[in-house]
Amino acid sequence: MATNEGKAFSSIRIIGSGLIGTSIGLALAARGVQVEMLDLDQKAQKLAQDLIASEISGAPEVILFAIPASALAETFEREFALNPGSKFIDIASVKTKPQVEVSRISGGSSRFLATHPMAGREIGGAASARADLFEGRTWIYCPTYADGAQVDSDVLETGLWLIKSLGATPISMSASRHDSAVALVSHLPQIVASLLAAQLKGAKSEDLDLAGAGLRDTTRIAASDPELWQEIISSNAQEILPLLINLQNDLGSLIESLDDPAKVGSFIAAGNEGRSMIPGKHGGKAREYTQLPVVIEDKPGQLAALFDECAKASVNVEDLTIEHSPGQFTGLITLALSASDAAILQKHLEESGWNVHAPR
Amino acid sequence: MATNEGKAFSSIRIIGSGLIGTSIGLALAARGVQVEMLDLDQKAQKLAQDLIASEISGAPEVILFAIPASALAETFEREFALNPGSKFIDIASVKTKPQVEVSRISGGSSRFLATHPMAGREIGGAASARADLFEGRTWIYCPTYADGAQVDSDVLETGLWLIKSLGATPISMSASRHDSAVALVSHLPQIVASLLAAQLKGAKSEDLDLAGAGLRDTTRIAASDPELWQEIISSNAQEILPLLINLQNDLGSLIESLDDPAKVGSFIAAGNEGRSMIPGKHGGKAREYTQLPVVIEDKPGQLAALFDECAKASVNVEDLTIEHSPGQFTGLITLALSASDAAILQKHLEESGWNVHAPR
Repeated sequence: MATNEGKAFSSIRIIGSGLIGTSIGLALAARGVQVEMLDLDQKAQKLAQDLIASEISGAPEVILFAIPASALAETFEREFALNPGSKFIDIASVKTKPQVEVSRISGGSSRFLATHPMAGREIGGAASARADLFEGRTWIYCPTYADGAQVDSDVLETGLWLIKSLGATPISMSASRHDSAVALVSHLPQIVASLLAAQLKGAKSEDLDLAGAGLRDTTRIAASDPELWQEIISSNAQEILPLLINLQNDLGSLIESLDDPAKVGSFIAAGNEGRSMIPGKHGGKAREYTQLPVVIEDKPGQLAALFDECAKASVNVEDLTIEHSPGQFTGLITLALSASDAAILQKHLEESGWNVHAPR
Repeated sequence: MATNEGKAFSSIRIIGSGLIGTSIGLALAARGVQVEMLDLDQKAQKLAQDLIASEISGAPEVILFAIPASALAETFEREFALNPGSKFIDIASVKTKPQVEVSRISGGSSRFLATHPMAGREIGGAASARADLFEGRTWIYCPTYADGAQVDSDVLETGLWLIKSLGATPISMSASRHDSAVALVSHLPQIVASLLAAQLKGAKSEDLDLAGAGLRDTTRIAASDPELWQEIISSNAQEILPLLINLQNDLGSLIESLDDPAKVGSFIAAGNEGRSMIPGKHGGKAREYTQLPVVIEDKPGQLAALFDECAKASVNVEDLTIEHSPGQFTGLITLALSASDAAILQKHLEESGWNVHAPR
């Protein structure tokens, strides 16, 4: 039955038993779909099969690729030849390359829906899989091809049902638009964080002891998986390259004018402007939250006690950061709230004897 | 009395009534020191004086400069000529330049202690000042000059007393060592974050809607004050320049080899290595915390309830991140804990009906 919830299906072969593939398998099996898990890595396949404990009878209605982008062309060609009546879906982080590769196979493009679940870090393997990994996440899908070809409506409806039944929100986008957006908001930050973190190699540990929250936040994603990211960056190099060249030009200009305070000031101001464009939660415009710093003792229960106070004051904490000084056992919690909630909470915390600082 | 707590003093003139100067004034006045607040900006000066409500009789025993680095040479020369018997301290973010400038004035260097409190963001003005701003923070001081000159012991003891009585931890360092360390751990991350954020100017808002926690964390400090940072970067350009050139070289190499997956993988791996060198809290080596993801409803009281559970389970939350999906009203909280605490908490939360995901 095709509805605005998409079209249900009864069997799926999932090729690739990593975190994403296995999580999809778990979620679909829980909804009564027959699931077959495959992987070139026999241990991963066995683990995924054991976790999901489902099997399929007959040809799979849907075949989903949860494999590295470099393996897609060959795998799709084989599976499409063997199961021409199936519906095909992939979930790789880059979308133009799979569409181009599938288009090379006669009749392939109309049966293949390119998608990308925006589900945080794709690390962890089958052992970390969770049926609820996609709940509340955005899931991009690409119903048209660059040459104007369309994905068949039965394949599209199947993909939409899969996305929605996993609790995600489908968003339609062209592959090139998707790849250009993620190059900017995901791949470029990854490269910049890795580039910065790499500069720390060989640094003296006494120097690194002076590191504050700024360095830690700026390099957090530099801890990402090299194998995963070499696939992503290589397969989206065409979109990433012009961004890197702009970055290189801006860096060159800064180096040229490092002794000119006014130019350095403009450079920092340009960063202010770009930063203010990042939307806040719920997809709205970036809100200027009020930052309320609170000094707590760094021991179990203090955060709980603090959030108890937030609940008592009926305020909504939008975000928070925790900062520690080297060698010290106090912690600085900075809560982000609306201006009105910050005023309420500040008063409440002060009256309750907390070490709350002035909001900013 | 000179002790390992330093040597107390009874009066101070603080030149510069911004956040740092006024916070020092508040803290010292609370300890019975006579405080005079000055500022070129009459409104700032009046506010600081009203807040601190203290005055000095006679010549100030200590004169502290809490002014932009570019104003130090002239201000020191004037104050030193008028009060040759005083002890002089500064708190600017860069330390070689003030030492060099003070050395040009005969007899100046032995009476001037260059220091730098590592007290988070130096924004906000007198209105945001807090006597406890420095509690638990590291505070660098530079007892020697590049030419081997020493700060007089009475000046040094006075500086140490000031630092310790404000609750900070003094750390001795040469000015050049300090400047080279902060160039790497503070100024370079600021520049990289600003550079990345500036690339978002002109981006389409639908594209930015796909931004996740990675982009937000990597650009957080790009919201910093341009005026403050043009001072800091300009006055430490000598230390920053070679770091920027290394960055430029690494970026150039990456651009050259963007189509080579193995080289891209090595680049990401180099970032892994650098990131792992950043120490964790309490000045220890970076610990590999276990990340425990929990999906909560995004409404008041949920964080409080979650931290109540952490307290009941007697676990210590080391850090946490909050992530929202665009347009969705659930939130993903990722708690960072020791591996053993994560196991305890996961079990506890699962038994209490929380939507807790597998740790990673």
